[in-house]
Amino acid sequence: MSSIGITAPAGFSAAALTAGIKPSGNPDMALVVNEGPEFHAAAVFTRNRVVASPVKLSRVAIADGQIKAVLYNSGNANACNGVQGDQDAAELQQQVADLLGIAPTDVGVCSTGLIGEVLPMGKMRAGVDNLSTSLGDNGEAAAEAIMTTDLVKKETVVNAEGWTLGGMGKGVGMMSPSLATMLVCLTTDASATPAMLDEAVRAASHVTFDTLDIDGSTSTNDTVFLLASGASGITPTQDELNAAVLQASEDIARQMQADAEGVTKRVTVTVEGTSTDEQAVNAARTLARDNLFKCAMFGSDPNWGRVLAAVGMAEADMDPDHISVYFNGEAVCVNTTGTPGARDVDLSGADIEVLVNLGIDGPGRATVRTTDLSHDYVEINSAYSS
Amino acid sequence: MSSIGITAPAGFSAAALTAGIKPSGNPDMALVVNEGPEFHAAAVFTRNRVVASPVKLSRVAIADGQIKAVLYNSGNANACNGVQGDQDAAELQQQVADLLGIAPTDVGVCSTGLIGEVLPMGKMRAGVDNLSTSLGDNGEAAAEAIMTTDLVKKETVVNAEGWTLGGMGKGVGMMSPSLATMLVCLTTDASATPAMLDEAVRAASHVTFDTLDIDGSTSTNDTVFLLASGASGITPTQDELNAAVLQASEDIARQMQADAEGVTKRVTVTVEGTSTDEQAVNAARTLARDNLFKCAMFGSDPNWGRVLAAVGMAEADMDPDHISVYFNGEAVCVNTTGTPGARDVDLSGADIEVLVNLGIDGPGRATVRTTDLSHDYVEINSAYSS
Repeated sequence: MSSIGITAPAGFSAAALTAGIKPSGNPDMALVVNEGPEFHAAAVFTRNRVVASPVKLSRVAIADGQIKAVLYNSGNANACNGVQGDQDAAELQQQVADLLGIAPTDVGVCSTGLIGEVLPMGKMRAGVDNLSTSLGDNGEAAAEAIMTTDLVKKETVVNAEGWTLGGMGKGVGMMSPSLATMLVCLTTDASATPAMLDEAVRAASHVTFDTLDIDGSTSTNDTVFLLASGASGITPTQDELNAAVLQASEDIARQMQADAEGVTKRVTVTVEGTSTDEQAVNAARTLARDNLFKCAMFGSDPNWGRVLAAVGMAEADMDPDHISVYFNGEAVCVNTTGTPGARDVDLSGADIEVLVNLGIDGPGRATVRTTDLSHDYVEINSAYSS
Repeated sequence: MSSIGITAPAGFSAAALTAGIKPSGNPDMALVVNEGPEFHAAAVFTRNRVVASPVKLSRVAIADGQIKAVLYNSGNANACNGVQGDQDAAELQQQVADLLGIAPTDVGVCSTGLIGEVLPMGKMRAGVDNLSTSLGDNGEAAAEAIMTTDLVKKETVVNAEGWTLGGMGKGVGMMSPSLATMLVCLTTDASATPAMLDEAVRAASHVTFDTLDIDGSTSTNDTVFLLASGASGITPTQDELNAAVLQASEDIARQMQADAEGVTKRVTVTVEGTSTDEQAVNAARTLARDNLFKCAMFGSDPNWGRVLAAVGMAEADMDPDHISVYFNGEAVCVNTTGTPGARDVDLSGADIEVLVNLGIDGPGRATVRTTDLSHDYVEINSAYSS
C-alpha cells in the first residue's frame, strides 16, 4: 500500500491511464475499486440544478449505501449532452460492472472537463478494458488522471488508531457555493455503516469544500465519494470517523485553494459579530466573491473600504456604524471608520487573513477561503474551451 | 440653455470647478441649482447598509419632496469617516444653503470616490464659495466634474411636448445590484408633484440602473436625484413623465455600460421561460455576475456550458432538461444539449446578446446589462487606491 492517497487504506486498488480524451495527451481516466470485505459508501453532490449525466447515475448508485468501484475521467464533463450523455455514462458503468463482476448500481461514475462535448466512447471503452486489468497500488496515478487545469495533484492521508483514511481531489476553478468544482474520492479501511459515512462526509464538506469559494461559480459535476472497505477490522466511533474525514477534507480543500486558477494570494475571510453562523457564512461569502475586493488583494492594496461596501450588502445582521476590519491581525477599520496607518498595512505576502466584525453581540462566526482575482485567472478562463 | 444635460431644461443652473480633491487635477466639484418656480424632487439611494455621510443627509433632505440645490464632489466618497464625515457633509450643506439663501434641508449632497478618506475641507469650502458665484449654463462642466474612473462624461436630454428632461451621470465600476455605483442627476422643467416624480424615478431605476450589473458590487454612495422646476408651465401626465424619465435613464445606463471599467464587450443577458419577472432577473443577474461566463465573453468564446452551469444555481423556476441558450440570435443549446456548430458562433463583435429560456411555460422575462471580465478590469481595480 502507498503511504498517501486513495490506495493507502487496506482494501483499495486503483488504475489510471491515458485514453486520449484530453488533447494534451495527459492521463485522463482512472478506476478506484473497493475490494472489501465491506462496500459501504456515502457521497455528496453539486447543488446545481443542471447536473451532468454521471452525477445522475451516481446519485442512484449511492442510494443503497453501497459502492464497489468508481470510474473517473477528466477532459470531458459529459454534461448537457442530453440522452446521449445519459446513455454513454450508463454504458461505461455497465462495462465496469461486467469486467469486475459486480452490479452496475455498485459503480459510481465521475467526469470533469468541458461541458457540452459528447464523450469519445471508442477511446473510453478501450480505456475501461485496460483499467480493469491494471488495478494495483496506483493511487498517485489516479490522482494525476483526474486533473484538469490543476497544476499539481492533490492527495491526503490520515493515520488513525489501527485504520487509515486516504483521499484524492481535483479542482481549481468554478468553486462555490455548495461544493467547490471538484471531484474528491476518500477511502478508508475502517468499518463503518453507510449512515456513519454519510454523517461524516456531510459534516466535513459543510465546513471545507462548501466554504471554499474561488469564483462564486458552481459546477455541474461536483462529487465527493467516501468509500469504506472495513479491511482494518476496526470500527471507529462516529466522532473518530468525523475527525478523520474532516482532517482529510481540510487538507484537500487547502490544496485546492493553493492551486486555484491564477492564484497569487490565498485569502482567508472570517466574519464574526453577527447573529448566526449561517449569517456569518453569507457575509464571508459575499466578501469572498466581490471582484473589487479580490482585485485589491491581487494588488496587495489594503483598500478596506471595499470590504465595508461588500459586507454592507450581505444578508446578515450587522450594526452599520460599528463594523471593524482587520488585515493580517491589524485593525484597519474600527466602528466603520479607518484607523491611522490603515493604508500602510503590508499585504505583500501570499497569505492574507481578513477578519470582519459586524458589530452585533451574537455568536455567529464563519470562515471562507478564497483567492485574489488576477490577470492569470482572466487569461486561463477566457481561453479554456478554445 | 444648453441642448443636452442638466441645464437643458428651463429653471436650472450649474457650476463646476477644480477644488483640488483629486490628485489628477481634474474638475472635482459641481453645484446644481433649481431656480424654480417649483422645487419638487424625488430620489433613490443605494440599498447598501453601509452608507456614506452624504447619503444619510440627502435621505433626510428629500423626505419632504423639496430640493433646491445639489452639491457634488468626486475624488472622495466621504464614506466610513465616522462622526467627522457626517459633520463635514453637514457643514458643506449649510454653506451652500447660506450662500444661496435657502434652508439646509433643501440641499442634497453627493460624493463619489475613495472610501475612508476624510474630506479636504479647506479646499472644499473655497470650492463651494466659488461655485455659488459662477452658476450658469454649465451642465457639461458639471457632468465632467463628477467623473471618477469614467473615461467619458454621460449626459442626456429628452424633448417632450413643451417641456424637457435633462440628465447627467457617472459610474463605471462597483455596479450592482440595487443601483449601479453611480451618481445621476435628472432635471426637468415640467411641473410635477413629488409623488409623480417619485413614481417616475423608481419605475425607471428599477429597469435601468437596477439591472446594470457590471461586477456584482454595490457602492455606499449611489444616488439618483430627479429635480423639477415647473419652469415650462406644462404638467405632463404620469405616463408621459414616466416615459421621459425612463428614456433618459436608459440612455445614461447605456453610456455607463459602454464606459464600464475595462470593458471590451457589452453583454445583454435576457432570461425568459420562468414563472415571474423577479425570477428572470435573478437568473439573468446570476449569469451576469458569473466570472467564468464573463471571462469567456472577454475571449469571444461561445462556451455555452458556462451559461448552463451559472443559471442552474439561480433562484428561478426552471426545467433543467429543457434549457435553451442563444448567442446573438443563434441557438447554441436546445433542451440542455449543444447544437451542431455551437462552438463556431462568432462572438468577436463588441456587442453580445445572450438569451436563455429556462424551459418553463411562464411569463417571467427580464434583461440585465453587463460586460466582460477583462485584464483591464483587474488592472484598474488592483491599483485604484494606491
